[in-house]
Amino acid sequence: MELKVQQLQIKAGKFKIVLNPEDAKELGVLEGDRVQLKDHSYLTAVVETGNMIPKGTVGVYQECCEKMGPVCPLVVNIIPTSRPSSVGFIKKMMDRQKLTQEEIYQIVQDIVRDNLTEIEMSAFVTTSYIHGMTTDEVEWLTRAMIDTGEKIEFDTHPIMDKHSIGGVPGNKISLLVVPIVAANGLLIPKTSSRAITGAAGTADLMEVLAPVEFTADEIKTITEEIGGVIAWGGATNIAPADDKLIRSEYPLSIDPRCQLLASIMAKKGAVGADCVVIDIPTGAGTKVPSMQEGKKLARDLIELGERLGMSVECAMTYGASPVGRTIGPAIEVREALKVLETMQGPNSLIEKSTALAGILLEMGGAAAKGRGKEQAMETLRSGKALKKLKEIIEAQGGNPNITHTDIKPGEYKADLASPADGYIIEFGNKRIVEIARIAGAPKDNGAGVWIHKKKGEMVKKGEPLITIFADKNWKLSNALKSAEKDFPLIVEGMLLERVQTFKVV
Amino acid sequence: MELKVQQLQIKAGKFKIVLNPEDAKELGVLEGDRVQLKDHSYLTAVVETGNMIPKGTVGVYQECCEKMGPVCPLVVNIIPTSRPSSVGFIKKMMDRQKLTQEEIYQIVQDIVRDNLTEIEMSAFVTTSYIHGMTTDEVEWLTRAMIDTGEKIEFDTHPIMDKHSIGGVPGNKISLLVVPIVAANGLLIPKTSSRAITGAAGTADLMEVLAPVEFTADEIKTITEEIGGVIAWGGATNIAPADDKLIRSEYPLSIDPRCQLLASIMAKKGAVGADCVVIDIPTGAGTKVPSMQEGKKLARDLIELGERLGMSVECAMTYGASPVGRTIGPAIEVREALKVLETMQGPNSLIEKSTALAGILLEMGGAAAKGRGKEQAMETLRSGKALKKLKEIIEAQGGNPNITHTDIKPGEYKADLASPADGYIIEFGNKRIVEIARIAGAPKDNGAGVWIHKKKGEMVKKGEPLITIFADKNWKLSNALKSAEKDFPLIVEGMLLERVQTFKVV
Repeated sequence: MELKVQQLQIKAGKFKIVLNPEDAKELGVLEGDRVQLKDHSYLTAVVETGNMIPKGTVGVYQECCEKMGPVCPLVVNIIPTSRPSSVGFIKKMMDRQKLTQEEIYQIVQDIVRDNLTEIEMSAFVTTSYIHGMTTDEVEWLTRAMIDTGEKIEFDTHPIMDKHSIGGVPGNKISLLVVPIVAANGLLIPKTSSRAITGAAGTADLMEVLAPVEFTADEIKTITEEIGGVIAWGGATNIAPADDKLIRSEYPLSIDPRCQLLASIMAKKGAVGADCVVIDIPTGAGTKVPSMQEGKKLARDLIELGERLGMSVECAMTYGASPVGRTIGPAIEVREALKVLETMQGPNSLIEKSTALAGILLEMGGAAAKGRGKEQAMETLRSGKALKKLKEIIEAQGGNPNITHTDIKPGEYKADLASPADGYIIEFGNKRIVEIARIAGAPKDNGAGVWIHKKKGEMVKKGEPLITIFADKNWKLSNALKSAEKDFPLIVEGMLLERVQTFKVV
Repeated sequence: MELKVQQLQIKAGKFKIVLNPEDAKELGVLEGDRVQLKDHSYLTAVVETGNMIPKGTVGVYQECCEKMGPVCPLVVNIIPTSRPSSVGFIKKMMDRQKLTQEEIYQIVQDIVRDNLTEIEMSAFVTTSYIHGMTTDEVEWLTRAMIDTGEKIEFDTHPIMDKHSIGGVPGNKISLLVVPIVAANGLLIPKTSSRAITGAAGTADLMEVLAPVEFTADEIKTITEEIGGVIAWGGATNIAPADDKLIRSEYPLSIDPRCQLLASIMAKKGAVGADCVVIDIPTGAGTKVPSMQEGKKLARDLIELGERLGMSVECAMTYGASPVGRTIGPAIEVREALKVLETMQGPNSLIEKSTALAGILLEMGGAAAKGRGKEQAMETLRSGKALKKLKEIIEAQGGNPNITHTDIKPGEYKADLASPADGYIIEFGNKRIVEIARIAGAPKDNGAGVWIHKKKGEMVKKGEPLITIFADKNWKLSNALKSAEKDFPLIVEGMLLERVQTFKVV
């Protein structure tokens, strides 16, 4: 059917068109069906229907216009066509049938090419969440995610990499691990993410110090020159399926295990990693509440690594409390930089960073077995790690002469005072992150929460428990209101319960 | 955050807005999150992001504009808000936890109010398909679907109703069942659907004879006056959740059993039905391939009816072959009308219609036990059913004097001739429906397929197997091409295989 084109000037995120309901009936198509737009070439698009499009006209979203050439055609021929075969494969999954490698590849390719609608994407992630995948399927999913994106191929080996499962606030350790590893002569091309539900991702942190948006080629060049890089993965085309899957999972608050595994290992596989250490924070409030679950996850990651030719070690870390005492981009970077400059700073941060860096040093052959952590500590203490980080900052286009005192928290701040003498008996990780986000993190980099008292520490009435920082006064006031309404810490005195004298009845 | 309103003049099917990615970051919201639009009142909308909306502006889809009042405001205040609790209940279902009646009601209400995004709707139907629901949950789902829509309350009882599970082509029996039942003094307010993937739904058929779009009040009035009505359910607000669920299920080609049950019984419950007969076509190519599955479905329907206070009987019917010899709106109506006028017509149509009508006559007390079918046949033979149908046509605003010869098939037609002498050994129901749809059914009411030879019948080479009708020549030619490319019937001679003389090697 020949229809006049009406450009909609709106991006739909997919190849979509809008038909008048009468024309849709005439064509025998319903919402969610596919049609081909035939001009010089063919383009498959998803049908929406709506009365705002007059009969005889097709509303064309921007993606379709752009795909059809430099000038959007005035008239196109619309031909009904069938759904991508992926939709049938997703149905197969629902019916508990195993998929072949080709079928999984097809699904991933259609995801990357935006060929699946939100309904189809949601069915895929929901089914993945409910049924899971076999080990073979997870391997194929990972390979498909690698192969449908850009890959970096290094000439020198081994390539080291590090990943944190997430879920623990203040986890700024990459700022220490990467320079420690690189300072020991190993290559570590670290791609990282921005916070989605957190207060600061590694990419958000590094951005306080230097630009983080690089192509895969640039990441390769910097790594080969300096030994390390801390880039935002989202600026590359590495494992692009991952980001699209996250967009469908986020609204449902699900993180299917099979996709978690594939997502981590695809990003490592695509940068050509040989040795990978994975930080699995466990404990209440993290993504992995129990040791048992953590161990299962570790085994799965190690097996998947083996199948993909990567050597993987996992570190189960304490995740019930934040790492260090800062949450939010600028103050986290300030804390990390201070450790690099002076070795002064929270034990949790120094211990965790050197432990993970140590594992990588041993895996990469830069330290003897059992001596990795010590050597990592020495690299930190000697100033070599700081020197390496400055090289990385410079290579990424930042100012290498920056010191921790140059990094200022937001100009607006407020303390949350302890309501009583006593001990911190509960520390709400998630609430602290929420408060940091309301204060503006990660968008406003000065926003965040400085923790004065952690779980188990003693506090006097009126002493500050946390300080909230913000770049904007109204955000500070919202954050403070939220914190006062639902207090993030519980302080209890030594006297837990007072038993009254017996009363004579 | 105060933002300038840019009206998008496009319907999104949901309450949706578009934010510039910078503003979204500033607000701390991601795609799929909810915000409140605050003008005089509050309206919750789903966030999309896009660069085509300038910073400081919010793109507002038409639904939101309309909801905010007669004039769309120039500026609105945007406040992040949480997801509807339904999303958490859907997550609970994914985790195999049972829902409460209140939780199911909340989901259905949010579906009816368009509060759930496509991702959330898809997660709900996918999970329903995979996990199913308990009998309690199905009852609550049905009650919620009834209570979130319009209901008809009759003063006279019993109210009779009939439903076909579908999947068998040419199933025009409602055109006979409704007048037979009504002619016997019972009330039967039949709401029906249009074809989605079929060639003609009951509403499409009735529309050949009279208008079918009535409000619930009009359906009540006509039924009370005449005894029966054949209306399109989609024009009412009866069980409106059903249509919205179908829109999410159709793109995935799934029909979760729990929603099939709830959908049928909600529509019957909402019109106040006391006695319901349900036609379950079984056999290859239908929705219920085996007798065993059919019986399970029948038991589920009967139990659900009991819980809702409805008396339900199910009829397992032969569904491997079309009912009658016509497929497509006009020719199906012509065939049905001819039976009513002359008792001449296919046995399958007369038998099935009188059998189902007979069950209703017995259930409603209009016929003695065991005598329903005979009485239905007599009602048909005596012309009382025809007279009643004419009254219904007139009450619905059609021409009561219409006869079957007035109803003309499409003016373009082509025969598909038998390639050989022999018998029809395979008859492709689904292919026949596809061909009728390519020829224009149900949109073009003259389009369809006339079946000359059914399974098991003898045919001579060159004799027509089917005739394809169309209102438009180009559609006829497409249908014919499709039929020739993938032949819908298989003819085989009596000699099935010829065994050759042995050859001397």
